[in-house]
Amino acid sequence: MKGIIAKEPGGADQLIYTEMPEPKLEAGDLLIEVHATAVNRTDILNREGKLGYVNNPIIGVEVAGVVVETNGYQDFEKGDRVMGLVNGGAYAEKVVMPADRAMKIPDALSFEEAAAIPEVFLTAFQTLYWIGNLKKQEKVLIHAGASGVGTAAIQLAKVMSNAQVIITAGSEEKLDYCRKLGADTVINYKEQDFAEEVLQATNQKGVDVILDFVGASYWEQNYKSIALDGRWVLIGVLGGSTVHQVRLMDLMAKRIQLTGTLLTPRSDEYKADLSKDFISKAIHYFEQGKIQPVVDITFPITEVAAAHQHMEANKNIGKIILKV
Amino acid sequence: MKGIIAKEPGGADQLIYTEMPEPKLEAGDLLIEVHATAVNRTDILNREGKLGYVNNPIIGVEVAGVVVETNGYQDFEKGDRVMGLVNGGAYAEKVVMPADRAMKIPDALSFEEAAAIPEVFLTAFQTLYWIGNLKKQEKVLIHAGASGVGTAAIQLAKVMSNAQVIITAGSEEKLDYCRKLGADTVINYKEQDFAEEVLQATNQKGVDVILDFVGASYWEQNYKSIALDGRWVLIGVLGGSTVHQVRLMDLMAKRIQLTGTLLTPRSDEYKADLSKDFISKAIHYFEQGKIQPVVDITFPITEVAAAHQHMEANKNIGKIILKV
Repeated sequence: MKGIIAKEPGGADQLIYTEMPEPKLEAGDLLIEVHATAVNRTDILNREGKLGYVNNPIIGVEVAGVVVETNGYQDFEKGDRVMGLVNGGAYAEKVVMPADRAMKIPDALSFEEAAAIPEVFLTAFQTLYWIGNLKKQEKVLIHAGASGVGTAAIQLAKVMSNAQVIITAGSEEKLDYCRKLGADTVINYKEQDFAEEVLQATNQKGVDVILDFVGASYWEQNYKSIALDGRWVLIGVLGGSTVHQVRLMDLMAKRIQLTGTLLTPRSDEYKADLSKDFISKAIHYFEQGKIQPVVDITFPITEVAAAHQHMEANKNIGKIILKV
Repeated sequence: MKGIIAKEPGGADQLIYTEMPEPKLEAGDLLIEVHATAVNRTDILNREGKLGYVNNPIIGVEVAGVVVETNGYQDFEKGDRVMGLVNGGAYAEKVVMPADRAMKIPDALSFEEAAAIPEVFLTAFQTLYWIGNLKKQEKVLIHAGASGVGTAAIQLAKVMSNAQVIITAGSEEKLDYCRKLGADTVINYKEQDFAEEVLQATNQKGVDVILDFVGASYWEQNYKSIALDGRWVLIGVLGGSTVHQVRLMDLMAKRIQLTGTLLTPRSDEYKADLSKDFISKAIHYFEQGKIQPVVDITFPITEVAAAHQHMEANKNIGKIILKV
């Protein structure tokens, strides 16, 4: 079978679609014929050789496809359309997926749409609810609102919690899209001081939850934006990792919970539990059409380099899909 | 009645025991005749005029005493021995306490022992369980092990969770005392690199929970000491508030939950809920003698200045009590 690897750690030009051994099916795995996969920032770090925890030379952490071998697992049959996280190996014709995290694809969705779900919706679900403990009608600030996780989080927070959703993004097109997805307040971070806008939109109280993909460059403004007893979830450092002045007394005064998290390196058990909780609490919104996967653009897998470059240029609204 | 106030914001010499108006009983309050109260660091900050959220000129946030007016509240009778948190006003002959946070004193305990319970045991209980989510047999690092909160946390973590308890303190006498209370590993922070000792005691995995009273000066060592998915609870900045280099990627890599917290400024409802949960889960250990309040020394209330100086000198093991 064929799969995408990086010849050498480096840029998108290092990616090649080449003959690779079929994945080895182990106890508890399904074998999936991949129809679509999607690009994540972790794939770019992996391509660059910057991730220590990835063993699979084939890139990619999520797929939508068809079960071709159930391996004795009773909940699935050959031919079932499934989506979910994999432990690497997604950019390929076939991949193994632990059966206890596989999710059946709602009938209304194509493979390309389904491939836009697992990583970003599970991350948004995990950060908003498992970590951020978002409650009904609370206020949430979602940075990078037009990103994959951003577009997922806007919808989950509105539909599941009727939250007051405030987002930041860097272009009018992105702001408009986020408003259509349900965001109540949209802020162009290139033109506005987002902390001031957040305080204005929240009666000077600030937000209960922040999804922070940005890190260092937003530190002070995020601190200003968060409410007493706020939960600040750190899931990216696109704006730098090192903060040069952190006043711990400020964290105590506002009783802030700051949690750093990554999804990909977590255990199989965690991913299975998260997927199951997502199925039970959120999947019906997709079946009812109340929440939609957001696909920015679909590339054939042979054009993977262009797909990575598209993400690196920060131009996407929602997910970048690879059709296999 | 008489109570302790600071003439002017400043040192312990500003404290005077003087005639003050009786506290005003409002709906939901008990009126308590105070038999004993205890010194907390928040009292020192209050004396120095550094707390913005204290309205009561009379210092002190916890008491043990006798109910003299039930105010129609059914769960208590005149003459009941009670202990609990108050919203200021503790260093006095009488004080009001919201009835929904009052705790009956176990029969075996004196008023002086009971006054050693509320603030430190509720703080230890809150930080270990409500915030730190300590689970059975997990590993916990408790700084300032011989402090009031430290001595409470060692006992709760051992008795309630059979945790592996590692503490730091600054003298052999304090280390010995912590070992007697149940600490498994004791570290003299003046002589040893505590992070190295913690890693050695935990098979290089680190601890699941840190109770951090120290802040900035321990930042790097605490980071080294904490395990993957660790909960780092920040409840004091005795070693400084400002950290000059925080690497957010490190927080993400270890998936750390860092929570700043203070108990005194929290809402009445929070204190009532916390007290009730503590009664239901922990008070029987005091009745059975499995957990003991730790009293370092008792001063008559007229010697309050000496009591404050004793805390400021960091010489105490456990609580400093004022007998009224």
